[in-house]
Amino acid sequence: MANVTAKKVAVIMGSDSDLPTVKPAIDKLKSFGIEVEAHVMSAHRTPAQASKFASEAKANGFGVIIAAAGKAAHLGGVLAAHTTLPVIGIPIKSSTLDGLDALLATVQMPSGIPVATVAINGAENAAILAVQMLALSDDNLAAQLDQMKKTMEESVMAKDAKLQQELGC
Amino acid sequence: MANVTAKKVAVIMGSDSDLPTVKPAIDKLKSFGIEVEAHVMSAHRTPAQASKFASEAKANGFGVIIAAAGKAAHLGGVLAAHTTLPVIGIPIKSSTLDGLDALLATVQMPSGIPVATVAINGAENAAILAVQMLALSDDNLAAQLDQMKKTMEESVMAKDAKLQQELGC
Amino acid sequence: MANVTAKKVAVIMGSDSDLPTVKPAIDKLKSFGIEVEAHVMSAHRTPAQASKFASEAKANGFGVIIAAAGKAAHLGGVLAAHTTLPVIGIPIKSSTLDGLDALLATVQMPSGIPVATVAINGAENAAILAVQMLALSDDNLAAQLDQMKKTMEESVMAKDAKLQQELGC
Amino acid sequence: MANVTAKKVAVIMGSDSDLPTVKPAIDKLKSFGIEVEAHVMSAHRTPAQASKFASEAKANGFGVIIAAAGKAAHLGGVLAAHTTLPVIGIPIKSSTLDGLDALLATVQMPSGIPVATVAINGAENAAILAVQMLALSDDNLAAQLDQMKKTMEESVMAKDAKLQQELGC
Amino acid sequence: MANVTAKKVAVIMGSDSDLPTVKPAIDKLKSFGIEVEAHVMSAHRTPAQASKFASEAKANGFGVIIAAAGKAAHLGGVLAAHTTLPVIGIPIKSSTLDGLDALLATVQMPSGIPVATVAINGAENAAILAVQMLALSDDNLAAQLDQMKKTMEESVMAKDAKLQQELGC
Amino acid sequence: MANVTAKKVAVIMGSDSDLPTVKPAIDKLKSFGIEVEAHVMSAHRTPAQASKFASEAKANGFGVIIAAAGKAAHLGGVLAAHTTLPVIGIPIKSSTLDGLDALLATVQMPSGIPVATVAINGAENAAILAVQMLALSDDNLAAQLDQMKKTMEESVMAKDAKLQQELGC
Amino acid sequence: MANVTAKKVAVIMGSDSDLPTVKPAIDKLKSFGIEVEAHVMSAHRTPAQASKFASEAKANGFGVIIAAAGKAAHLGGVLAAHTTLPVIGIPIKSSTLDGLDALLATVQMPSGIPVATVAINGAENAAILAVQMLALSDDNLAAQLDQMKKTMEESVMAKDAKLQQELGC
Amino acid sequence: MANVTAKKVAVIMGSDSDLPTVKPAIDKLKSFGIEVEAHVMSAHRTPAQASKFASEAKANGFGVIIAAAGKAAHLGGVLAAHTTLPVIGIPIKSSTLDGLDALLATVQMPSGIPVATVAINGAENAAILAVQMLALSDDNLAAQLDQMKKTMEESVMAKDAKLQQELGC
Repeated sequence: MANVTAKKVAVIMGSDSDLPTVKPAIDKLKSFGIEVEAHVMSAHRTPAQASKFASEAKANGFGVIIAAAGKAAHLGGVLAAHTTLPVIGIPIKSSTLDGLDALLATVQMPSGIPVATVAINGAENAAILAVQMLALSDDNLAAQLDQMKKTMEESVMAKDAKLQQELGC
Repeated sequence: MANVTAKKVAVIMGSDSDLPTVKPAIDKLKSFGIEVEAHVMSAHRTPAQASKFASEAKANGFGVIIAAAGKAAHLGGVLAAHTTLPVIGIPIKSSTLDGLDALLATVQMPSGIPVATVAINGAENAAILAVQMLALSDDNLAAQLDQMKKTMEESVMAKDAKLQQELGC
Repeated sequence: MANVTAKKVAVIMGSDSDLPTVKPAIDKLKSFGIEVEAHVMSAHRTPAQASKFASEAKANGFGVIIAAAGKAAHLGGVLAAHTTLPVIGIPIKSSTLDGLDALLATVQMPSGIPVATVAINGAENAAILAVQMLALSDDNLAAQLDQMKKTMEESVMAKDAKLQQELGC
Repeated sequence: MANVTAKKVAVIMGSDSDLPTVKPAIDKLKSFGIEVEAHVMSAHRTPAQASKFASEAKANGFGVIIAAAGKAAHLGGVLAAHTTLPVIGIPIKSSTLDGLDALLATVQMPSGIPVATVAINGAENAAILAVQMLALSDDNLAAQLDQMKKTMEESVMAKDAKLQQELGC
Repeated sequence: MANVTAKKVAVIMGSDSDLPTVKPAIDKLKSFGIEVEAHVMSAHRTPAQASKFASEAKANGFGVIIAAAGKAAHLGGVLAAHTTLPVIGIPIKSSTLDGLDALLATVQMPSGIPVATVAINGAENAAILAVQMLALSDDNLAAQLDQMKKTMEESVMAKDAKLQQELGC
Repeated sequence: MANVTAKKVAVIMGSDSDLPTVKPAIDKLKSFGIEVEAHVMSAHRTPAQASKFASEAKANGFGVIIAAAGKAAHLGGVLAAHTTLPVIGIPIKSSTLDGLDALLATVQMPSGIPVATVAINGAENAAILAVQMLALSDDNLAAQLDQMKKTMEESVMAKDAKLQQELGC
Repeated sequence: MANVTAKKVAVIMGSDSDLPTVKPAIDKLKSFGIEVEAHVMSAHRTPAQASKFASEAKANGFGVIIAAAGKAAHLGGVLAAHTTLPVIGIPIKSSTLDGLDALLATVQMPSGIPVATVAINGAENAAILAVQMLALSDDNLAAQLDQMKKTMEESVMAKDAKLQQELGC
Repeated sequence: MANVTAKKVAVIMGSDSDLPTVKPAIDKLKSFGIEVEAHVMSAHRTPAQASKFASEAKANGFGVIIAAAGKAAHLGGVLAAHTTLPVIGIPIKSSTLDGLDALLATVQMPSGIPVATVAINGAENAAILAVQMLALSDDNLAAQLDQMKKTMEESVMAKDAKLQQELGC
């Protein structure tokens, strides 16, 4: 289904190795008919590209930026430093510390520059949060969110019914 | 300055003892000319009120809900469960565990129901994030955000100049 | 063995993927002759169902509710908010943070609404704790608990004997 | 109000220095008309007394044992090892590690011997949980719990009203 | 080599599933010619056996007790409560929390009842520490420890030489 | 009371600022009639002195070395590297991380070089542990330990009696 | 003492409120005769200034950059992204999480862009580390470092002598 | 490419089992034409060798020492105690605690003796940091670092292009 009037959402990942974790965000956004632009950009290896992208994002038609990064995850903060668009951070779990480093480096932002942080590896929720933001001025998206909520509820209820059938209790 | 067309923002705190920590969010929102409604509501002691508030928030003219709670901080999640509006969570530091419990209980939401989490006690950033969301469809707010960013930058630069004057280096 | 007069125990899990971890609670309860009702219910995806279930649990013949959930584990708290029956929480370990998030989100409840928390993934203990509560007014269950304790003791003693045989020391 | 038929509740603390933290549990239990017996007993300094107390607790008319201890908090586990009564553990925050040590030492019990753990320093909730257990077979206590829940709800609603009056929003 | 005059060392594990982790302690002790007695005893499932063993350990010819346990690891503390012999605790890593729970539950003992704690899963060091204690009054053991230290040093030096050969640097 | 035949105990602290925390170890040792030698020595600032002290400790009549240090607490490990005497480590809580850094840096020793670790700031227990080691070959010390255990038990029982008098329950 | 040929060291702090913690770094550097330039610059509020400073630092005669920041401490990483000079990071403890957030956000840098991290609030060590780097090509600084090490050693030895005088042991 | 005038870099690992993790540091250093000397040396098993190596390192032509160790990682600190050369510490993740123990034991050094700490298992960054230090007085190395930074940037940009091609967005 098309959603031509909505703003675009950028999904920036710090490394191409994050793609399997981040992909559900891209897919979920597309399922809402939102135009997505995905990038590999690094707060540390391509800081100029990241800064430029964020600085121009609003003018280039983006409404929300999603940033996914692991370890000392600065990506969300660097992007947020260069835009007033809302930036959503996905802390990525890497090979040590179970994602705690990325969570703290993403969420503990100083006053003035928030990063809207979701759960470690929580790509799908980052997408839904972006849709919620865009839906503030897009009734079509709002209706889709209502529908998604209903579908989730029904899915859990179906699993509940199935569980009781299987267990007999 | 008035901002009559913008949606309202709700600031819900789990306990009236959280007010000193949460107050900066209310003040910041008002400084942007946004209409704020503040409540003490508890995910556990007044769950019906909290659910009702969230369920009707969109119809009642709210655009964003900010939820502040400590310890096993469920407030953001409970509100998010009953609305498709974006919910921003402020983990509140209480007397044990230095806020880690509230942070994890707020941010680690399951797929489908995001809570946009800011830093522990990060009330001001919760407000700014809410403004960023509303600014997606409100050029006046967007302009104010740009101005705020410029003012912050100048303030840091002034402190830098002052530091060098004081230290002589 | 039948235990017809005892109250029922509800075992609620936040996701059907928790079943393998939660199953030992169901089995253990049944082994005491207790009637069990198992459900998949989500604090966030089916909050109305969860609230309704808890509100009516006492009237529907339940004595104890066991709630198992991972990450920002609100399920126990949501159920406890809607009943005065004792609620037992099982924090479920998920793919990040080794269960610490679920533990803190379950145990750190605010004054007024306790959740009786057992170890991470501690399903069997949740069941035993429920039996201990019901046994307060059920001598048959109390006798079974005494027997179980004796059996556990003998089992450890048998393992001790076997160990010394194997090691020769 | 008297509650003569209810079982007694024991409140055991590992050190007399824990009394200020534990006192709310005693007061809350008494407010329900429950007979309380308080003790200083140490899992490590008076293990024989602790074991003996737990072993005889049921015969001596106790229904629930509450154990409060800090650091390597073994008290709940030691008592639980010697009784089939439900044991509630209150992890006490001491001068290092912010209560995390006591929480883990109390809640992470091995299969077979649960300790129903409440929040760090959560004495009041330990009492309420004990009342919930006793209320399973005591309609008077159950009615009091319902009343307490209603009072809590009204108290939060009163604070909400007061907040809005004070803030004017 | 025989060491007939030395005191015995007890190696107590909380579960027979700990044997693979604990075995190196038994082997290391035997390599010093020390008589070892190994047991499966649980602080919670066989508290009477554990208490009795510790109470009689000195009279039964033991000099040191090694206790290995996971999760809320109370075993070392329970044994130490019943003896004035030195008790060495090995925190065992289990399926959650990476051993942190067992470490804190073992080491954070209250004043009066120390447990000499070694690293998580540090069975070999527990044995060496026990030998060091016994060697205080046994020159034969002391000489063996000196020899072991020399052998370790030579082993590292040999690995160093091999490394440089392999890497050519 | 004199205890002339016992070996000396060294109490080494990494900084003179640790003295208030470490002093109870010195006092406790002296109360057993043990000769104590206290030093300020740093693993990092006076490594030669620390190595020399440990290397010669046995020849100089010491039986046990107690090492107290904070932050990246290497002192115990450095001393243990240069002696086969048992080394007891006291992790000292400093201004950040609540003592967790010192605990891990003290207890997580590699195979071959154990440090017998007590609780964070657990100076008194370090002393008692040292006495337990020396008592393995000193019946006078063993008798004193038995007496101390009895006194502790009586002290707790007296506090228990006092508590019940005060509370009337 | 003058040290005219050495490169300058920049000390950048994220907020002027960090000055009391950072001041010892400035003082220590000056005590070595090193020219210091101190700045308040924020990775998030003045990213352009920070990037520009780092990009031009080498050309402007700097040899080392020290960056001090708290919470989601990105400052060191942002500076390191724009220079090949060594960047030293000082994690600053703020009001929550005891400095752990700043430590992880500073040290857990991805491959390619190191930040040489010192202890939480470890300003003096940051300065010494900078001097060690500059001393690689400056014999005068190297000699001063040797002297400082000797002075530290003597200071500890003097404290040791004083301790024994005071304690009489 | 040859780099004959540069100082050597020592890469010391606490155990030969660390080689796979540490190897990238050696390779990276060699890729810059830097002469490397690799050693297995243990702070605890070969303290004399480690001390001697560090004491003589400067005279033997080394400019930087890299130390890699796990658990209670004292190696960096022990080396730093015996030299004024900059010492870089690589905390190695071992089988428990996810590297947190090694990180804290490496980075939390007391005033006077810094260890420049990189990320857990961050061998490549340790090498780059060493090159940055040597490049302060070696224009050839500085030029190589500039080139490496450019190559990294281009590599990320190429991955970005590839990603968009693959995803079509």
